[in-house]
Amino acid sequence: MELLFLGTGAGMPAKTRNVTSVALKLLEERRSVWLFDCGEATQHQILHTTIKPRKIEKIFITHLHGDHVYGLPGLLGSRSFQGGEEELTIYGPKGIKAFIETSLHVTATHLTYPLTVHEIEEGTVFEDEQFIVTAASVIHGVEAFGYRVQEKDIPGALQAGRLKEMNIPPGPVYQKIKKGETVTLDDGRIINGRDFLEPPKKGRIVAFSGDTRASERVTELARNADVLVHEATFAKEDAKLAHNYYHATTEQAAQTAKKAGAKQLILTHISARYQGESPIERLEHEAKAVFENSKIAFDFMEVTVERS
Amino acid sequence: MELLFLGTGAGMPAKTRNVTSVALKLLEERRSVWLFDCGEATQHQILHTTIKPRKIEKIFITHLHGDHVYGLPGLLGSRSFQGGEEELTIYGPKGIKAFIETSLHVTATHLTYPLTVHEIEEGTVFEDEQFIVTAASVIHGVEAFGYRVQEKDIPGALQAGRLKEMNIPPGPVYQKIKKGETVTLDDGRIINGRDFLEPPKKGRIVAFSGDTRASERVTELARNADVLVHEATFAKEDAKLAHNYYHATTEQAAQTAKKAGAKQLILTHISARYQGESPIERLEHEAKAVFENSKIAFDFMEVTVERS
Repeated sequence: MELLFLGTGAGMPAKTRNVTSVALKLLEERRSVWLFDCGEATQHQILHTTIKPRKIEKIFITHLHGDHVYGLPGLLGSRSFQGGEEELTIYGPKGIKAFIETSLHVTATHLTYPLTVHEIEEGTVFEDEQFIVTAASVIHGVEAFGYRVQEKDIPGALQAGRLKEMNIPPGPVYQKIKKGETVTLDDGRIINGRDFLEPPKKGRIVAFSGDTRASERVTELARNADVLVHEATFAKEDAKLAHNYYHATTEQAAQTAKKAGAKQLILTHISARYQGESPIERLEHEAKAVFENSKIAFDFMEVTVERS
Repeated sequence: MELLFLGTGAGMPAKTRNVTSVALKLLEERRSVWLFDCGEATQHQILHTTIKPRKIEKIFITHLHGDHVYGLPGLLGSRSFQGGEEELTIYGPKGIKAFIETSLHVTATHLTYPLTVHEIEEGTVFEDEQFIVTAASVIHGVEAFGYRVQEKDIPGALQAGRLKEMNIPPGPVYQKIKKGETVTLDDGRIINGRDFLEPPKKGRIVAFSGDTRASERVTELARNADVLVHEATFAKEDAKLAHNYYHATTEQAAQTAKKAGAKQLILTHISARYQGESPIERLEHEAKAVFENSKIAFDFMEVTVERS
């Protein structure tokens, strides 16, 4: 599980930072990639990575400002052009469907794969045996969501060696033991499956604030997260600007990470007013002063989400 | 008057060629820039040029395939973000209005300048004292236009020195003479304005084929053009593919330039199947074999449109 930042700038593309998109690479976990937001030229950024558009399984949109969605129609079309056949699901606020449908219809784009678009509300937006994705409303002047991606714990592997030592021959009973069930063997012995499993692997948690003012809802989304990806459009001293434009500062993002008990904070959606090495270092220092494990994202930065 | 190629590839962005857009720089003529098509990330390409989005006065769309229009919403928004206040006019086929309106509405984009969108038909789509722009239907499976931009002849400058030598004092009469009118002076002398003007400067002509099969309509648009910008998605040997996909080959484009009596041919919209120096040289040779003054465009290529 890795995060790959495809665009880390705010509002407009700049030479050094494209508009917003983050890929959550789940290649080992499910041979797929999830995107969070899809600003214009996200498909262009992808050209410089190892991501294959047909591997993109889900796209979560935080809100409908242009710098977060204008890359969608082109990416959908190219995924088709490149022979993508597997289903793609998009989650986002009300209006996302009209934007996608009009864009594809007007341009006579016929997709080679099934596309499902969910206009979401707060709560669980996706769940299967591996992952649960939750959305919560954040504060951005327009309908806007943050997302929490929670990997479910992976049950421990069966200690088959120990079972064999106890002269329990492999067979259907192993499946039951593996599930942690209690079974009675033919010879009368009673085996508690839980005693024959490696410890479970703890699922990882990644949270995305989307664009927002500092918000308790993000704190909830990021509770015990391994990584919190938080917007930090403005520097600490520009808190007033941040408030007026419904954005957060470095310091506010760091406070959220701290309150949430997150393990790592990545700041993104950096305003173009902070350019060059030294202003960016300053932004990082502002966050670190509150939450030590903070980092400012840059385009094409990769972060491995470690299991804790 | 210069052409600046912002994107010269077909269908999908590639590392070396972005999707279609060409700028016609009219900075000396009218302090503005016109765009022909606006594929995704056209605004990103512009970041690497001296073009200012607020200087873009008109955008002509040849047809509504995604690789020709997906850059519009982002460019319109950024032009606003950067404080553009001057009117922008967009010309294109039926449907362009719905695409722009939905994109701006869904994303809550409020423009700081007046935007007019004309859904055009064949014929004159714009005319003022300097330029006349004509559209003609081409052959691309969907409604598609080529454009001819004709600069009007610039009247010759007044030979004021000669008038002064003849003891005709400057005054309102100079304005009439400058317009080529015949005037009777107070002393009875009759002056034919045309005799006191430098020769007029011939207006220049640039034609754009848009995406199309070889078409007589493009030949008409490009009649005596100083530059014909023609699509050449395919090589000569791939004429069957070109026909099936409603595109043209290098050789067909060159034949059109020759028949039209154009002075220069620039080939663009090159398929990604032709990559590297040698295949591109081959494409150029194919065109040159028919029409010597041919060139394959590349991203950021500039061509000065000379007055003939």
